[in-house]
Amino acid sequence: MGRSADQTGVPQIAVPRLARYLRLLHRLDKEGVARVSSRELADRLGANAAQIRKDLSYFGEFGVRGVGYDVKFLLSELSRCLGIDRDWSMVIVGAGQLGSALARHRGFRDEGFNCVGVFDRDGGTVGKKVAGLTVRPIEQLVDFIRENAVQIAVVSVPAESAVEVAALAVEGGIRGILSFAPVRLPATPGVFIHELDLSTELMVLGFYLSQE
Amino acid sequence: MGRSADQTGVPQIAVPRLARYLRLLHRLDKEGVARVSSRELADRLGANAAQIRKDLSYFGEFGVRGVGYDVKFLLSELSRCLGIDRDWSMVIVGAGQLGSALARHRGFRDEGFNCVGVFDRDGGTVGKKVAGLTVRPIEQLVDFIRENAVQIAVVSVPAESAVEVAALAVEGGIRGILSFAPVRLPATPGVFIHELDLSTELMVLGFYLSQE
Repeated sequence: MGRSADQTGVPQIAVPRLARYLRLLHRLDKEGVARVSSRELADRLGANAAQIRKDLSYFGEFGVRGVGYDVKFLLSELSRCLGIDRDWSMVIVGAGQLGSALARHRGFRDEGFNCVGVFDRDGGTVGKKVAGLTVRPIEQLVDFIRENAVQIAVVSVPAESAVEVAALAVEGGIRGILSFAPVRLPATPGVFIHELDLSTELMVLGFYLSQE
Repeated sequence: MGRSADQTGVPQIAVPRLARYLRLLHRLDKEGVARVSSRELADRLGANAAQIRKDLSYFGEFGVRGVGYDVKFLLSELSRCLGIDRDWSMVIVGAGQLGSALARHRGFRDEGFNCVGVFDRDGGTVGKKVAGLTVRPIEQLVDFIRENAVQIAVVSVPAESAVEVAALAVEGGIRGILSFAPVRLPATPGVFIHELDLSTELMVLGFYLSQE
């Protein structure tokens, strides 16, 4: 449900698949596998080999027919394409249950997403420690983003605060927002917004179950 | 990233959009709005009116040209289609930070997704209270699902335990799984699996930011 002008020709729907290929390639590399065919990738992922070849072709001609892909090369190319050959700094706004869980989420740091600040508006939460960081008052958000050149804001506040929080992050110069708030944030030129409402995800499940 | 044989003709990619329409319709209904045009829906959602008409047409001819949609009728039809005119019972497996946050997530209950059990394999966590529920040992999962006719399992355990946990849920007779574990679960006939890896969502953001 993200949106952005896309300059690569990669359809947005392919990006999560690329992330999955990347995860598998990491595993193969650890296992000492040097080359892999699209067929083997497909088998390991429960996916379609033609789809995989098509997805990888957006980034150039990686594979050699009959020989397969060089795992290390494909890994580095995909990492670069997905922007995880570098570190990103991010803040989490909203230090409730979900925000705290996100701040402590192992997988983020592993992929180069470093949480450098946690913010909340609640006086009872400000000053507490979350994942080793002291929760700061929301009033400091704009300056903090600016001074630390923070690139990503994760928004985990209630729906009624999300638009205001996003506006503050944009004012500070944020480049991307991942929002868990069940509300649509206004489009902002130059800022990529990715919305992920957990209730919507359950509704998707409910939809399929109610078809039976 | 879910997968299922789909019997409605609704493309999977449209389902999250339907959930968003539903949320807006709830709000319009509360505001006392009786009729709404696809244009007004589009304006409120920052979406495309033709897309909205197409999405809603999967469920029959709701709208009347020049008159718009009857809000209450569309609301009840969409709720039925999305399976949220009824209650779903679910368990959360993995009572770590994320699992606990999910158990306490307000939005789930509001949409009819009722958490009836929380499970963990860690002896230090079992017996503790999360969202008013006592955390049960994983060994009780199969029987609990069976005895309580639980329909949905939310899996928030580490990658290395997820496949085993999903197998237990399936053994108990689960119908749908929402998994936050960064690993692909094996397809199981009759069980809808929806995978949502939070790191992947950040990678999607990283991908777009690294295009600039």
